[in-house]
Amino acid sequence: MPYSRPALYACALLLLACSGSIARADTPTTKQTLSESKSTEWRTLDPAQTLVMELAGKHQVVIELAPGWAPEHVANIKTLVKQRYFDHTSVYRVQDNFVAQWGDPDGDSPDKAKPMGKAKASLDPEFTRNLKSDFEFTLLPDGDLYAPEVGFSNSMPVARNRMAGKAWLVQCYGMVGVARDVDPTSGNGNTLYVPIGQAPRRLDHQLAVVGRVVEGMQWLASLPRGPEPMGVYTDTSQRTGIKSIRLAADLPESQQPRLQVLRSDSDSFNRLVEAKRNRKGPFYRFPVGHIGVCDVPLPVRKVSTDKPVN
Amino acid sequence: MPYSRPALYACALLLLACSGSIARADTPTTKQTLSESKSTEWRTLDPAQTLVMELAGKHQVVIELAPGWAPEHVANIKTLVKQRYFDHTSVYRVQDNFVAQWGDPDGDSPDKAKPMGKAKASLDPEFTRNLKSDFEFTLLPDGDLYAPEVGFSNSMPVARNRMAGKAWLVQCYGMVGVARDVDPTSGNGNTLYVPIGQAPRRLDHQLAVVGRVVEGMQWLASLPRGPEPMGVYTDTSQRTGIKSIRLAADLPESQQPRLQVLRSDSDSFNRLVEAKRNRKGPFYRFPVGHIGVCDVPLPVRKVSTDKPVN
Repeated sequence: MPYSRPALYACALLLLACSGSIARADTPTTKQTLSESKSTEWRTLDPAQTLVMELAGKHQVVIELAPGWAPEHVANIKTLVKQRYFDHTSVYRVQDNFVAQWGDPDGDSPDKAKPMGKAKASLDPEFTRNLKSDFEFTLLPDGDLYAPEVGFSNSMPVARNRMAGKAWLVQCYGMVGVARDVDPTSGNGNTLYVPIGQAPRRLDHQLAVVGRVVEGMQWLASLPRGPEPMGVYTDTSQRTGIKSIRLAADLPESQQPRLQVLRSDSDSFNRLVEAKRNRKGPFYRFPVGHIGVCDVPLPVRKVSTDKPVN
Repeated sequence: MPYSRPALYACALLLLACSGSIARADTPTTKQTLSESKSTEWRTLDPAQTLVMELAGKHQVVIELAPGWAPEHVANIKTLVKQRYFDHTSVYRVQDNFVAQWGDPDGDSPDKAKPMGKAKASLDPEFTRNLKSDFEFTLLPDGDLYAPEVGFSNSMPVARNRMAGKAWLVQCYGMVGVARDVDPTSGNGNTLYVPIGQAPRRLDHQLAVVGRVVEGMQWLASLPRGPEPMGVYTDTSQRTGIKSIRLAADLPESQQPRLQVLRSDSDSFNRLVEAKRNRKGPFYRFPVGHIGVCDVPLPVRKVSTDKPVN
């Protein structure tokens, strides 16, 4: 239940002194949790499912693709990437508290759109995924405003509707989606977006979500905002150039990002969630006691490059 | 209930065709709602409760103060502003997906802190407000993860706990809070912060919230991020200078921002909420049917400066 412990909560509000007894004494902090995590609880990014975007200004953005959720969209994006489609395109739309969007600014104009080569111009919607019995899902305990259940699957934020037999990736800060026009088959991956503010949950299962920024989100979130209402730069010189987008597997090994994400089916992930729900330390006067799906920061770390001495 | 209509929702997910019949045919769009609003439904910002912050680069941020929620904190901030305390300070911390923070970067160091003159160095916590019978509150219909009830009061996002007899301003994107140290009386207004990403609801009723950015939020949200973990610039040349912060009432009339916000106790506000909950138009394949307290964008408009011809 989203608000499941009114009695404890009222206690927390009314009696400062009782807050210490509500916080679970055995809940480790985030730092403790991560330092005590096992190497098997981390998943190294697969170079075949990782995009590396080089922005003007030598800023790099690393995106983990989620082919299980939108296989045709991810395949199409890979086809575009292989053709170097995104090289010399730009981030051409940044709308405050909404999204940064990149790719071909004329992508939806038949006359001006950049040729997409072997990629498909339209794709069937992959906005939700059918639940199967082997679906890996770590349920969060506090519910959600927009879906019956939320949690994480393979370290991505997910909503689940068991009655409908569907699941979908949640449009949290940092998730990467496929922009589309009104026609639900019009999204093809030639323009992508990422939420840069409050999670735009109204977009959930209305577009294809293809992955998540795992490093460099700050370079997209801090870009100058374009003019209202849509944030599309009318002065095209404001666009941020994209030097290239490559599949990590196609880069020389020395240039491949070597990153790991904490596995959401690990004990340490569950401990992290509890650490966030029951924050310890002197700053927090009251235990928070709740966490939303877009409030869980997913830990990312560099793979140690230390090699054993011969 | 946060997830109150599972049957309709399953219908929406399973049967695309029924989505049209779920969306309320009589729900006007946001644009319609605002164009049909009455002038009496808008509230002009009170110059005596409005701060104008001038950043380097000629960018202006306008903050509406909320003295009803933290009267001593707001009074202390006004004392600092009158003394021109913030002039030549800076935005010295920008943490991605968390906050931008400004004021005296050495504010918590007894040796280096800028003298605060007639302002108080410590204040009793004003993190919640006692509910009174005349408390104006427009309840949102979909519940919340963190509080028993959420809504708006005097056009500010608010959480309410009737059992505890308390209400507090919610830490949404754009709300302005008073940074503090571990000691809950250590916040005095010499450093302020604003959430720039997903609403950090864990901070609710743990700090004093003193108002809301009503214009210019983009200038704070798009600043370069400082280094992790806290976003405090280690290279102080990255700080963004604050030329001045003034109370609007102390500016020449021609320099006072003339802005209005939609009153949250108005029919048009309720219609706006319904328009957002039941988005119309061909883009949305499914009615959203829910809205969170930090998902409601509060309309701001310029006061018409047209004067009647003599």
